Amino acid sequence: MSDTLKTAALIIIGNEILSGRTKDKNAGYIAEKMTEIGITMQEIRVIPDVEATIIETVNLLRAQFDYIFTTGGIGPTHDDITAACVAKAFDVPIEQNEDAYNILLAHYGHDEFNEARQRMAQIPVGATLINNPVSAAPGFRMGNVHVMAGVPKIMQAMLDSIIPTLIGGTPVKSITITCTLPESKIAIGLGNIQAQYPDIDIGSYPYFFAGNTGVSAVLRSTDSDKLEQASEAVSKMIEECGGTPKRL
Amino acid sequence: MSDTLKTAALIIIGNEILSGRTKDKNAGYIAEKMTEIGITMQEIRVIPDVEATIIETVNLLRAQFDYIFTTGGIGPTHDDITAACVAKAFDVPIEQNEDAYNILLAHYGHDEFNEARQRMAQIPVGATLINNPVSAAPGFRMGNVHVMAGVPKIMQAMLDSIIPTLIGGTPVKSITITCTLPESKIAIGLGNIQAQYPDIDIGSYPYFFAGNTGVSAVLRSTDSDKLEQASEAVSKMIEECGGTPKRL
Repeated sequence: MSDTLKTAALIIIGNEILSGRTKDKNAGYIAEKMTEIGITMQEIRVIPDVEATIIETVNLLRAQFDYIFTTGGIGPTHDDITAACVAKAFDVPIEQNEDAYNILLAHYGHDEFNEARQRMAQIPVGATLINNPVSAAPGFRMGNVHVMAGVPKIMQAMLDSIIPTLIGGTPVKSITITCTLPESKIAIGLGNIQAQYPDIDIGSYPYFFAGNTGVSAVLRSTDSDKLEQASEAVSKMIEECGGTPKRL
Repeated sequence: MSDTLKTAALIIIGNEILSGRTKDKNAGYIAEKMTEIGITMQEIRVIPDVEATIIETVNLLRAQFDYIFTTGGIGPTHDDITAACVAKAFDVPIEQNEDAYNILLAHYGHDEFNEARQRMAQIPVGATLINNPVSAAPGFRMGNVHVMAGVPKIMQAMLDSIIPTLIGGTPVKSITITCTLPESKIAIGLGNIQAQYPDIDIGSYPYFFAGNTGVSAVLRSTDSDKLEQASEAVSKMIEECGGTPKRL
């Protein structure tokens, strides 16, 4: 983990994603936000609601990456086991967090703050709460692990309050150059430019859209000057292949 | 791996998914198809275009699950390294596959079948080709690993031709019961029913839609009779909590 490269991984906890019943909408959102602040998402895993799997995955990934995010499994029902699993992963007790309890009590009122809802105040000892302006029940940060809700609206609100606490790396800049040539026409040239600029991440993405086809070359780097040079080389190469480069 | 439980994992290969530039549309699609044919998706991983990571992930997961699917990285450009990585994972050479070469030649014709496109005929030795009716360049199956394109339209066509070759387990049936009570009202009752029916997977999913809120209990099992009993218990419990159960 260098000073400039900050890494993250996302753990999506939920049988409903693995069965296809629910389509995940969080991964792409979190990935984009991390890119914006110069944190490189290195891995995303979707795992089932199985205690041993959650504990093992949290411990494996939190040792490998700077920041870990989890989504899912922090509601009031029996299948919401994320908080208990994170406590076990960190080998700390889980108990009623007074701040969380009071937040939930204020939100629901005495009459509606039932036993199931009180379960959402169970937080690993030593964790910091993450504010939930949508439905009160907080997430939490334990070490480098940020535990968030799975409902996208709630997750997004939680992420908004987490982001200012993260230390980003040098933001990665990106330049996209498209043309209507088929991908294979520029493949060799793009490979040569990649070999010439090994520090620049050059991706090639064919597109098929509304009857139009073409390819987007996406160049990414923290080094603006080199990025500019490589992008000019790509534009020139596309022209030499008979295409019209369009820089986005 | 029992006779009745067949498992699968999906490896999504692509920096563009991890950066958030491209939103994955394949995971949910593949998950749904697996559920339909009685194969349980156990894990989904998104990993970068890094040789060592691809090889390690393929080898780890193919030993753990019955079927592995990969998406992404089989095009004509320098960043398409999946086929070479799978060959290394299986410790076999990669070479020009005559069938793949002829398919691509027939599709492009002599004049357009350039060096970059010929790269897509490089297939690990011992692999079986997977037909690509959309854009010709085939995927392949090597052992229990099915290597598919990342473009959703192509991936879907490839999956259609893979599915008849898979041996499904006993299909998992599912019953969904919704009500407009808040999740926490049925949480304790649902937990009790889960404890009574440990073999049935009972999930609880709150919904917030167009101003309406409520909760869906999803019960899943290969055992129709027990599923029916547990579903009746859930409906009864919802009524006892003052709700109106609606079975979907």
